[in-house]
Amino acid sequence: MDSSRPIGVFDSGIGGLTVVRALMERLPFERIVYFGDTARVPYGIKSVATIEHFTAQITDFLLRQDVKMLIIACNTMAAVAAEVVRRRAGDIPVLDVIEAGARAAVGGSGAGRIAVIGTPTTVNSNAYARRMHELDPAVRVYSQACPLFVPLVEEGWLDHPVTRLTAQEYLKPVLAEEVDSLVLGCTHYPLLKPLLKEVAGPQVRLVDSAVTTAELAADTLQRLAIANTSRDPAAYRYVVTDVPLRFQTVGERFLGRSLGTVEKLEW
Amino acid sequence: MDSSRPIGVFDSGIGGLTVVRALMERLPFERIVYFGDTARVPYGIKSVATIEHFTAQITDFLLRQDVKMLIIACNTMAAVAAEVVRRRAGDIPVLDVIEAGARAAVGGSGAGRIAVIGTPTTVNSNAYARRMHELDPAVRVYSQACPLFVPLVEEGWLDHPVTRLTAQEYLKPVLAEEVDSLVLGCTHYPLLKPLLKEVAGPQVRLVDSAVTTAELAADTLQRLAIANTSRDPAAYRYVVTDVPLRFQTVGERFLGRSLGTVEKLEW
Repeated sequence: MDSSRPIGVFDSGIGGLTVVRALMERLPFERIVYFGDTARVPYGIKSVATIEHFTAQITDFLLRQDVKMLIIACNTMAAVAAEVVRRRAGDIPVLDVIEAGARAAVGGSGAGRIAVIGTPTTVNSNAYARRMHELDPAVRVYSQACPLFVPLVEEGWLDHPVTRLTAQEYLKPVLAEEVDSLVLGCTHYPLLKPLLKEVAGPQVRLVDSAVTTAELAADTLQRLAIANTSRDPAAYRYVVTDVPLRFQTVGERFLGRSLGTVEKLEW
Repeated sequence: MDSSRPIGVFDSGIGGLTVVRALMERLPFERIVYFGDTARVPYGIKSVATIEHFTAQITDFLLRQDVKMLIIACNTMAAVAAEVVRRRAGDIPVLDVIEAGARAAVGGSGAGRIAVIGTPTTVNSNAYARRMHELDPAVRVYSQACPLFVPLVEEGWLDHPVTRLTAQEYLKPVLAEEVDSLVLGCTHYPLLKPLLKEVAGPQVRLVDSAVTTAELAADTLQRLAIANTSRDPAAYRYVVTDVPLRFQTVGERFLGRSLGTVEKLEW
């Protein structure tokens, strides 16, 4: 396989840019094609059949870009449609944020008491808990849907009294279970890390699935010997299905750097 | 024209059910076909071109249901795509929530100082202010985008400290302008009426565009002599593009009664 081929990363919108950011830091020589389905975001409130259909379309698009690896950077798609991606990808390795987050959570949990927060669809799918129990049947997993966190992040209220009050309300039941780890089961949530750390307290370790996904990607590229050997500056492409008003502003907040050119795909 | 034909009401999701509710109360003998584009909601963050394209598809669908009147029960579509609907509708009368809200606001404003709240797209379109200035060039209009209100309503936090704090923050600049009227420029907002009334204070009159749209519909049916003369119990159809998890619960909260059968359209 030509190791200079890009990694395909996709999400229902812009949240997956936190995964791209972690990949850029961990794997600076890898080319990346990012796909964000901004015309149909959010997926978290849609039915499984609809999400599977959209996911298949995106997978086929990225396979046509000749990617060497696919990363599902959307917890909702990873929770309910990962099999759709793997079936279509064939030999191309497929990673996802849930696999990466579940492994990191179980691997680093002392007392084996783990909280998972995410969108309603991710939490209702029970995908994190199922995967963590496969990895270690002894862990106790407590889940909490936090539907307001995504709009709060997109509003830019990252350190706002409203966000703090909302976090206190959402985290109360899982903190009452004395968890030692808190998995950020949505790619928007890394932007709330400082606030969530404060609300959760110093005894709770935060598991950022963007960072853990970049780690898993690095391991997989090594193991399959497909890491890019070129030391040229890596190229990045951003493809979206719609360019909404605040896309550039919000996208750059997620990515932590300038977005450059964004291509709009007409379907 | 056969006056027993239904009224077509549409929205990007379920918010327009507040307009249906107002229509049911004001016009109990009229048949209604409601269309909610739940697979692609929300429109408020999408580009104008995308919204126009989606709006045209929905209009064509409702015209095929042989409606006698169309009501755009979505502020975003009314703000940026009302012309698309009118072009396709030909002789069929087309009403929209912005026209209804703007008329009621200007008609009832004492001091002529009016606040409008809505989604970012509605507010940025400036459609309410433009229409109100056409009706009365002397009015002063102050607009404020409130992107968190829709998710707060859908979370069911209708009377919650987080919602109150958010409303205080959003309304602060318009209340500082000593407005006498507050137009609820989004079909989700009628569910926040009691809380908004409290935050805005007794000197501010709330203009609920669901109620004002039902009034305008009643006037228009009378004027065109197409009100249903049958006194049989009216039939209601609900057509959506996706049936998400909490659709029934949230929908019934908006409608204030049981939804009955919901049809899912495969596009």
